[in-house]
Amino acid sequence: MKTNFLMQQDEYIKLINEKLYSYVAVENTPYDVVKEAMLYSLSAGGKRIRPILTLAFCEANGGNLKKALPFACAVEMIHCYSLIHDDLPCMDDDDMRRGKPSCHKQFGEANALLAGDSLLTLSFHTIANAHHLAGTDSLACLSAVGALSEYAGVNGMVGGQVIDLINEGKKIDADTLYKTHSLKTAALICSAIKLGAIAANASDEATKNAVSYGYELGMAFQIIDDILDVISDEKTLGKPIGSDADNQKTTFVSLYSLDGAKKLAGEHTKRALDFLARTNHSEFLFELTSSLLTRIN
Amino acid sequence: MKTNFLMQQDEYIKLINEKLYSYVAVENTPYDVVKEAMLYSLSAGGKRIRPILTLAFCEANGGNLKKALPFACAVEMIHCYSLIHDDLPCMDDDDMRRGKPSCHKQFGEANALLAGDSLLTLSFHTIANAHHLAGTDSLACLSAVGALSEYAGVNGMVGGQVIDLINEGKKIDADTLYKTHSLKTAALICSAIKLGAIAANASDEATKNAVSYGYELGMAFQIIDDILDVISDEKTLGKPIGSDADNQKTTFVSLYSLDGAKKLAGEHTKRALDFLARTNHSEFLFELTSSLLTRIN
Repeated sequence: MKTNFLMQQDEYIKLINEKLYSYVAVENTPYDVVKEAMLYSLSAGGKRIRPILTLAFCEANGGNLKKALPFACAVEMIHCYSLIHDDLPCMDDDDMRRGKPSCHKQFGEANALLAGDSLLTLSFHTIANAHHLAGTDSLACLSAVGALSEYAGVNGMVGGQVIDLINEGKKIDADTLYKTHSLKTAALICSAIKLGAIAANASDEATKNAVSYGYELGMAFQIIDDILDVISDEKTLGKPIGSDADNQKTTFVSLYSLDGAKKLAGEHTKRALDFLARTNHSEFLFELTSSLLTRIN
Repeated sequence: MKTNFLMQQDEYIKLINEKLYSYVAVENTPYDVVKEAMLYSLSAGGKRIRPILTLAFCEANGGNLKKALPFACAVEMIHCYSLIHDDLPCMDDDDMRRGKPSCHKQFGEANALLAGDSLLTLSFHTIANAHHLAGTDSLACLSAVGALSEYAGVNGMVGGQVIDLINEGKKIDADTLYKTHSLKTAALICSAIKLGAIAANASDEATKNAVSYGYELGMAFQIIDDILDVISDEKTLGKPIGSDADNQKTTFVSLYSLDGAKKLAGEHTKRALDFLARTNHSEFLFELTSSLLTRIN
């Protein structure tokens, strides 16, 4: 039998997916290829962590789920656009994404470029329309546009991509690794949480703690990803840990060792839970945090 | 001596450029390459037709220039991002833009992709911040985000790109040619004008006529561009008009003949001036319209 937590998570995902797909109306004209590419990538099996955080933080702050739902979808559209553009040949050149051909492999580079551009644009359109369609306060919608565009832009998520690109193949120090992932990974998670708080009209104090939680969660999540990469390489390829001396990519494991990285992940996790306790007492959010951060235990 | 019209145009351009560049703060860190790419393309010598239209329609409707200026810059950012992405190898593959290397030639493909993404994101950030920074009403800012994201997205400008891409190298009919350019060219011009009307809190009737003017102006502008392409080919290359039988690109000239295209441009121009007369009596806007649409006379 499913726990309350899993049932709630499924309920959130169902709400998100229904709403998310409704924003892209494919009409089966010959010109719908980019809309098809948008839907293909939106429905490619993401875990919806970011929009779930938006909904959960809205509810935890006493807000109305209906008002947070367009914001949640907007964050997921930004996440999806970033993956499509990241996979392009001039970026990471990835042929596969979540076990399926990446967007440009399926639809061609030009259509994938335009699908990313369209999702980015649709994200802000979705927030702007929430005022009329979901009755969200106009100031809240405007704050959401401001926050999301800040966290997603050149001083946020894209800024992290830039640092990552510039340091490709170079050994980097801890400060630079932190800066990369605080922008590339944590920024969009922070935006998801902030938009949930905005939808609920949460206090400045609650919002601040929520965003600090997001930063710690994001960093812990990234460190754990680095750890899992090494552990799965060891298991599936039989490589001893640390044997990739020719792989120049700096990770939390290469910089801090496996044990050091585990310790670091534990510290960020503890701080994440501390901030969470300060901002609210949602059982769902504590369980979600645990489910995301105990993948290495 | 400069006419009042030219002095006013220069004044608008000065205001736009100062404000536009102020949104991209390059701090000379090693990670500023994408910000440099954004500034490079923003300052590459555009005529600022769209943001001038935003300012002029705001003033013509009795609005405050200060409130329209962020909207004007937001439209120019969208225009600039679209040019950067259009020039990429997977799209038009253009090495030059306005007599200088295109963004990806100067900064590499990955940086150009991210510069476009960043300008698109910054555009909406700029509008969202206008509420705090320029005192623009929050509902007006939200309407501006809604309108710009509609005209720029997959049902607007990007949609025009899609139709253009799909029909590359094919002969198309008049309906398709109109659909392509009403989205690819006219949509962003309409958005520029609509944002000026929104900044001035213009009536629905005035806004509707202003947007209709924008559509007619955009179509006339595109037809004249097609005419000028043929005339300049004839002059510089000595090609007789209509000799490009192997060039499959359908234009208003190839579809309607040179004289037919001139007649069509005249009709759109007349309708543009009619709509303009219905919405306001700004001398500047009549002169601007004439300066844009009399290039073939």
